[in-house]
Amino acid sequence: MDWILFLVFLGACGAAAATGAMFSPGAWYRGLSKPSWTPPDWVFPVVWTTLYLALAFAGARVAPLEGSAYAMAFWALQIALNTLWTPVFFGLQRMKAGLVVIVLLWLAVAGLLVSLWPLDKIAFLVVAPYLVWVTIAAALNASVLRRNPSA
Amino acid sequence: MDWILFLVFLGACGAAAATGAMFSPGAWYRGLSKPSWTPPDWVFPVVWTTLYLALAFAGARVAPLEGSAYAMAFWALQIALNTLWTPVFFGLQRMKAGLVVIVLLWLAVAGLLVSLWPLDKIAFLVVAPYLVWVTIAAALNASVLRRNPSA
Repeated sequence: MDWILFLVFLGACGAAAATGAMFSPGAWYRGLSKPSWTPPDWVFPVVWTTLYLALAFAGARVAPLEGSAYAMAFWALQIALNTLWTPVFFGLQRMKAGLVVIVLLWLAVAGLLVSLWPLDKIAFLVVAPYLVWVTIAAALNASVLRRNPSA
Repeated sequence: MDWILFLVFLGACGAAAATGAMFSPGAWYRGLSKPSWTPPDWVFPVVWTTLYLALAFAGARVAPLEGSAYAMAFWALQIALNTLWTPVFFGLQRMKAGLVVIVLLWLAVAGLLVSLWPLDKIAFLVVAPYLVWVTIAAALNASVLRRNPSA
């Protein structure tokens, strides 16, 4: 694998990760009613770090392959939407707009997986958990929105 | 050109553009001291819309080409940093962190241009004004930071 390529993709993930550090869940989020299946706080940075490494790894594997155009377009789309979600949800505290963004992110990740499957099974496998996690995050966003109609 | 591919790249630009609509310059920004060469407000959405269309066009042209791995990695990096800048600057009102982000964005766009040059001269030419604009935006960020030490 081309490690410089890996680092460029990891840098893109770093921009998304920076939103987590700069728009961290504050008193507002702690005060919201959350469903019983909400993962504990420490899980989020651990999962995201793992997923960002997997995304950069998959990007660097697939970018040099012939026929990777759609995979690359969806890779770019998902990282932009990923970077957008945190400021919208935690920064603006707009749960409904956040839900729109995370549903679009889910579609982008699904598009990425569909594009990766015929190209590279390993890249597909390391990115697949991302779709599971975005599904959980989207469900959490939707649940928190429903449970806190006045927030 | 593959128009569906164009639309996926344009969607990534849409995520970046959404930050401009959601974290718009408010009273805080209007109250800052700005240099005489600050472009008028109406210029920003016009320029950004043009640049986003150019970026999606360049992405869709180049993604299917052999040897486009670095161009695609830098394309993803610049759109993530682009999406990050607005919430940091206008949302958090952190001008110093904004300057760090926009300098990284400048480097990502420079990397994109270096990668585009040997691949596709038309893509290079339509993206080149982006570097000029990010240079102006970075200079404006730096100037506003310097002129408003207490803001």
